[in-house]
Amino acid sequence: MPEPIPIIGATGALGWGLAMRLAAAGQPVVIGSRSQERADEAAGRVREVVPDADVQGLVNEEAAQRGAIVFLTVPFRAQSENLNNLRDALRPGQILVDCTVPTAAAVGGKATRTLGVWQGSAAQQAQEMVPDGVTVIATLHTVSAKLLGDPDAQLDEDILVCGDRKADKARVARIVELVPGLRTVNAGALEMARIAEQLTSLLISVNIRYKTHAGIRVTGLGEADHWG
Amino acid sequence: MPEPIPIIGATGALGWGLAMRLAAAGQPVVIGSRSQERADEAAGRVREVVPDADVQGLVNEEAAQRGAIVFLTVPFRAQSENLNNLRDALRPGQILVDCTVPTAAAVGGKATRTLGVWQGSAAQQAQEMVPDGVTVIATLHTVSAKLLGDPDAQLDEDILVCGDRKADKARVARIVELVPGLRTVNAGALEMARIAEQLTSLLISVNIRYKTHAGIRVTGLGEADHWG
Repeated sequence: MPEPIPIIGATGALGWGLAMRLAAAGQPVVIGSRSQERADEAAGRVREVVPDADVQGLVNEEAAQRGAIVFLTVPFRAQSENLNNLRDALRPGQILVDCTVPTAAAVGGKATRTLGVWQGSAAQQAQEMVPDGVTVIATLHTVSAKLLGDPDAQLDEDILVCGDRKADKARVARIVELVPGLRTVNAGALEMARIAEQLTSLLISVNIRYKTHAGIRVTGLGEADHWG
Repeated sequence: MPEPIPIIGATGALGWGLAMRLAAAGQPVVIGSRSQERADEAAGRVREVVPDADVQGLVNEEAAQRGAIVFLTVPFRAQSENLNNLRDALRPGQILVDCTVPTAAAVGGKATRTLGVWQGSAAQQAQEMVPDGVTVIATLHTVSAKLLGDPDAQLDEDILVCGDRKADKARVARIVELVPGLRTVNAGALEMARIAEQLTSLLISVNIRYKTHAGIRVTGLGEADHWG
């Protein structure tokens, strides 16, 4: 049996979509929320779409202890609070997969604009806040939460993965690629999240003009398995 | 006869590749350089690849007066100097197409990192520096100069176009799309160049890991002509 994947903030659109897609791929998932009730509700919605889903709802601090690779899919305005709350839950050796995007919507501004984060990116802020020995990987900035959460939507796009060690990125990439139609791309060190996170705002700008849910592909990479 | 396209800095890799590709598409081009000799040399190299090219080499200030839409393809460290030198050459109504990318290589740093530009982006710096009535459009940040300048390379990727008026972006898009295999994408206002310019560094990071010349595509846009 594969180890469960905890998803902190999986009551939100991106996290829920990821949970549903991973569950549909046969992967056990744990939905984390601040409230047990909302976690249960979101897990129930996964089961409505994926009747045989191996999905459980737990409060965030418990959810984070259920698997080695923990996704964090909360809005930027809640990122610091969530990471503070997870300090006693995360253990050395775990990977925190940060999917946070610092759009200006966090402070009532436009989602096509971003906030400057002192550490350079939300992911680097996360790396500063997690306990020693926890590694942060940044990914899932460019997939539309709407498409990810629509079981009828066919995905066909790339997902950038940023992190300081290829082996850690590979572990996260293998999970992301359980979602049919998503290919992962090694975008480099964690600091490249400064750029990857901005892409959300760029794609929102495109979406406004094309009335769509755009994503990205990286051209010229060939067919070889980069992570193998 | 279509009006010539002046390309300032077309002795460099990106500008030369654009000049060669546009000439191959039957478009008259003017290669601008600080020196007449280097402009002539670069024009000669275009003619070697495209024997019937309508290409002329001129010093930048003269080149910029030969067409309504002027491409600026100089390194970031030379952008301000070039724009200062063009102040008496550019006329109201012209479009300056800024292709500058503020990578840290401009100050001896890594090309996978970028410099902060006070105005937000190199393109916004350009908008501040051009004479009144000249409009800046930002584009061509993600195409590999190496592939663009290789007449045997097949391109198949998207080019983001940033600018404040769709009609201006459309005029530039029509030129870029003369290059076979390039599709343009309306990425929004000129301020979105803050993000588009960063993509060069992200793709350089990808290139290092995949030994390739990566580009991007935007998914989900459909087949309709956005500019029509």
